[in-house]
Amino acid sequence: MEQLTVAQLGARAKAVAAVLASASPSLKNNALAAIADALTARTEEIIAANKADLEQAVRNQMSQAMQDRLLLNPARIQGMAEGVRKLIQLDEVVGKVEEGYVRPNGLCIQKTRVPLGVIGIIFESRPNVTVDAASLCMKAGNCVILRGGKEAFSSNMCLTNIMRDAVESAGLPADIIQLVPDTTRESSNQLMKLSQYLDVLIPRGGAGLIRAVAENATVPVIRTGVGNCHVFVDASADAAMAVNIIDNGKTQRPSVCNAIETILIHRDIAKDFLPLVKARLDEHNVILHGDAETCEILGDCVVPAEETDWETEYLDYQLAVKVVGDVDEAIAHISRYGTNHSECIVTKSLDNARKFQLTVDAAAVYVNASTRFTDGGEFGFGAEIGISTQKLHARGPMGLYELTSVKYLIQGEGQIR
Amino acid sequence: MEQLTVAQLGARAKAVAAVLASASPSLKNNALAAIADALTARTEEIIAANKADLEQAVRNQMSQAMQDRLLLNPARIQGMAEGVRKLIQLDEVVGKVEEGYVRPNGLCIQKTRVPLGVIGIIFESRPNVTVDAASLCMKAGNCVILRGGKEAFSSNMCLTNIMRDAVESAGLPADIIQLVPDTTRESSNQLMKLSQYLDVLIPRGGAGLIRAVAENATVPVIRTGVGNCHVFVDASADAAMAVNIIDNGKTQRPSVCNAIETILIHRDIAKDFLPLVKARLDEHNVILHGDAETCEILGDCVVPAEETDWETEYLDYQLAVKVVGDVDEAIAHISRYGTNHSECIVTKSLDNARKFQLTVDAAAVYVNASTRFTDGGEFGFGAEIGISTQKLHARGPMGLYELTSVKYLIQGEGQIR
Repeated sequence: MEQLTVAQLGARAKAVAAVLASASPSLKNNALAAIADALTARTEEIIAANKADLEQAVRNQMSQAMQDRLLLNPARIQGMAEGVRKLIQLDEVVGKVEEGYVRPNGLCIQKTRVPLGVIGIIFESRPNVTVDAASLCMKAGNCVILRGGKEAFSSNMCLTNIMRDAVESAGLPADIIQLVPDTTRESSNQLMKLSQYLDVLIPRGGAGLIRAVAENATVPVIRTGVGNCHVFVDASADAAMAVNIIDNGKTQRPSVCNAIETILIHRDIAKDFLPLVKARLDEHNVILHGDAETCEILGDCVVPAEETDWETEYLDYQLAVKVVGDVDEAIAHISRYGTNHSECIVTKSLDNARKFQLTVDAAAVYVNASTRFTDGGEFGFGAEIGISTQKLHARGPMGLYELTSVKYLIQGEGQIR
Repeated sequence: MEQLTVAQLGARAKAVAAVLASASPSLKNNALAAIADALTARTEEIIAANKADLEQAVRNQMSQAMQDRLLLNPARIQGMAEGVRKLIQLDEVVGKVEEGYVRPNGLCIQKTRVPLGVIGIIFESRPNVTVDAASLCMKAGNCVILRGGKEAFSSNMCLTNIMRDAVESAGLPADIIQLVPDTTRESSNQLMKLSQYLDVLIPRGGAGLIRAVAENATVPVIRTGVGNCHVFVDASADAAMAVNIIDNGKTQRPSVCNAIETILIHRDIAKDFLPLVKARLDEHNVILHGDAETCEILGDCVVPAEETDWETEYLDYQLAVKVVGDVDEAIAHISRYGTNHSECIVTKSLDNARKFQLTVDAAAVYVNASTRFTDGGEFGFGAEIGISTQKLHARGPMGLYELTSVKYLIQGEGQIR
């Protein structure tokens, strides 16, 4: 079969976008059920395709952690299928009338939810994104053009073909789900400039990818996932609570964007608090990078922090530590180094809690709770396609609602101006 | 005084953004009142500054129409002041809790409206945009960096300085409103790439400007205002109503983006209808560009349409005319040539009305009413900063709501995952 260009994929998606946009909720849900069933039924095929990726990973001496991210086994495939089935239960968003009103001249205006149209997604490594992203986009009435990483190409292509077969069997066009058939930098760049066909591009990956997309794309972009998150422990904080929140934020899953990377400790409690939190973090062998005061209090076991530490998203068992004079200094530090993702204050002071929440410019601002809750599931959205760190269109976890736009439907009786 | 660079303007805006974001509604409204008062009090100063622009316009042999767009007189200045005063009455959007709920684990989540932050606006010609845009952005809690056209530079600078003085007298930092102090292409390009400081860039102007911004900006952009709008007259249409809607859409104000540029006429009624609509449009000497069937019906008075006519936003007393076989052909034409702004069907058929509204991909889709209603005032928003023709973030008229984002405020009692 001849390989399609990115522009051809775009044209094909655009050609079927209206069909999907006006598909009934039942039709879309039947297609989701068909995808889930097919993933289970064709498990062996998926594992065989995945094996090719894994063999290549071994040849390329990929790290064990990365190989694990790549691996698909029956349990993981079952997990993907269950994820798709969960979407069936979510309320339909397309067609929802957000506001409906009559103007003095009798015009009836209905602000109605509609799909965005065609969504491009550039992602790295984990092949489950292929299924998660395509199924969530479809539930919201959007066609998707996926461009995955080269490490998982064989798995991604197999999963895409299975989904295409499934949606077609349910009565929807196969072209609502497409995978870019090559993983060159060129195909990625073409997708970023496919303004003619793409309504939005969502990069899912590391800071490098996000930056490249923001700089090169002419298509509207939603930036996701870079999280340099902080916990500020105020003078009045419940120390045990603060230790729990820091431990959870750093060690429960260090590789994710809502994990914390720097803690800011109020000077008045630093001497007592720092040894407490260090003792807990030692259980996971967390390496601390401390400012001068932290080093003085905790001694040689702390690595002296450099300027770059305040900017670093470690995504690992490492944590930067700084002593600050008050909530204002904490807010100023976060304003300078934060990535507008998730920030937390642990305090008993109403004034400081309020100031922190109103002033810190982030998608999610926590008082006395772990930043790890910034997640579509934890927020009650059912599923998400990523965490937006920009302010335009979507902020925080992006669920079905964030994958739609609006359209004004106006009914008149011949009104003119 | 040393001239500030675009980056310096950005840094100054960012430095005061938090102050404005947390300003009380009263404080912002007092600043609006101060601006309105100052515009009236300093009318002579404005007229003197405007005179410099007008003299330059004469030297440059600018068209009378363009000179008129540039002109500020006491009545127009009064109009600007009244526009600002109207904003005081609008409901506050910042701080509005859109959704507030408690998760099973006890976390209280509040999705709260917050300002976007710092907004860049690139605009052409009319100096009233300086005041309209700055005051609306301020009401929504946003700092603004304005970059106007060179024709109106003296007027824009005068108006900006008056607004800066006024907000300062009301107790807000002057730097919440700034004008780029030069009108070179370079300053425009710098603004498009000011990602460090700008949260969004809104170009207001012709298709060329919008395209340049979409292609060069690294800052998130909201595209506005390009409107290649259509009216489809179905076989069942009330002919008198259709003539009124077409006449209103074309001739009430041809230079605006919600004016119509092409009409599509159902073949079954073309022979009777085209002479009717032509007779009415003749009252304004509208030049018709017709397809072959239209030319055959109406004769030599019609200019044969070229392919480019279907793509052209005339913004003038010119109109393209095409005969189509049915609603599907009309929708296909609009899908190919439309700019997703405003589209209208005149019909008595429920099926066709419904199909048209569901399928046509535009910000506003009308049944039996003029496209000229796509406007913040007409939609009941009180004021607008432009009409978005993209699907991301804002679609259709952009009022205060569209000039804000959200932030999740989460209150816990030590919850961890």
